[in-house]
Amino acid sequence: MSKFPAQLETAINEFTNLPGVGRKTAERYVFYLMKQPAEVIEKLITAISQLHNQISQCPRCGNFSTNKNLCAICADPNRDSKIICVVEESHDLIVIESTGEYHGLYHVLHGTLNPLEGITEKQLNINSLIKRVKTEKTSEIIIALNPDLTGEATTIYLKKLLIGTNVKITRLARGLPMGADLEYADEVTLSNAIKWRKEA
Amino acid sequence: MSKFPAQLETAINEFTNLPGVGRKTAERYVFYLMKQPAEVIEKLITAISQLHNQISQCPRCGNFSTNKNLCAICADPNRDSKIICVVEESHDLIVIESTGEYHGLYHVLHGTLNPLEGITEKQLNINSLIKRVKTEKTSEIIIALNPDLTGEATTIYLKKLLIGTNVKITRLARGLPMGADLEYADEVTLSNAIKWRKEA
Repeated sequence: MSKFPAQLETAINEFTNLPGVGRKTAERYVFYLMKQPAEVIEKLITAISQLHNQISQCPRCGNFSTNKNLCAICADPNRDSKIICVVEESHDLIVIESTGEYHGLYHVLHGTLNPLEGITEKQLNINSLIKRVKTEKTSEIIIALNPDLTGEATTIYLKKLLIGTNVKITRLARGLPMGADLEYADEVTLSNAIKWRKEA
Repeated sequence: MSKFPAQLETAINEFTNLPGVGRKTAERYVFYLMKQPAEVIEKLITAISQLHNQISQCPRCGNFSTNKNLCAICADPNRDSKIICVVEESHDLIVIESTGEYHGLYHVLHGTLNPLEGITEKQLNINSLIKRVKTEKTSEIIIALNPDLTGEATTIYLKKLLIGTNVKITRLARGLPMGADLEYADEVTLSNAIKWRKEA
């Protein structure tokens, strides 16, 4: 049915591979790109190809790094190397960094345990975490995974794995978020807030 | 603040150029691409670069075509070359094609008159339409622009331009869309529907 030339169809199909992009959005992107001067296209293509050619995972923590070197955080001598904060993805790391509250190192799992989607401990960056704990004289591991089903499961799994080692294992506090309205808080959040209440 | 390598930042910025894509969505696309094997990236890059290298505008109607040839519709000898349907963009053409109701040719304006955004008749594919009408023995022009402010203005402009020629000028019918609810129809739609009522 389509009267688009094949190259347009191909481009539209490629864009539908991006997360959350359907046919209509992909068409919109392609029509937009069609109208741009050659430099804009060139810059986009260069940016995408550099992603694969120059960006790699930090061999120590799994964060983004360039040309297989240590990432900026692992390479920073001012960070406290005794604490490791375990996150699901590198963008979680960025959010924690932006608080300015944490000065230790990180470990990026690149996902959480999700047997339904076939993600087991083998697909995750877990073995290297255990190795780090054994070789780096780690004193504390902060598990900072999302408070959802797979995040919780992975936290429990990691805790069991690490329980033999002499490392303190902590996780992010649960409670009411800033600006929350008690009336609309869900029961789990509220019961966490009551359970872990602090002196005022 | 950002601890992303510069190449990642560049890629994220490039993606925010796409229509409707903000920082968060761009990050999502870039993180997704980072996790893909090299073939997926290669295919996307090839698709984007072919857009500019191989896709051109049909020299007759302005629709997409390949390597500066006539587009598939203009090249089709079975189409009625006496009727030209004027559309804003090539994707409007696709929608009309999908109805199977229309067997004439098209003319793509690549926009509508919008003085506020600096789009005047010079930026639009209007001159070649006038030339076509004079040389192609056109008997009817169907103006199929969107029923919005700039579409209406452009329709009136085109009508004035073409009024000297011996061509019948029509536009798409206005009225209630299929499945509409009278209670929720806007006043313009409803008054159009009353004004252009037909025998039942």
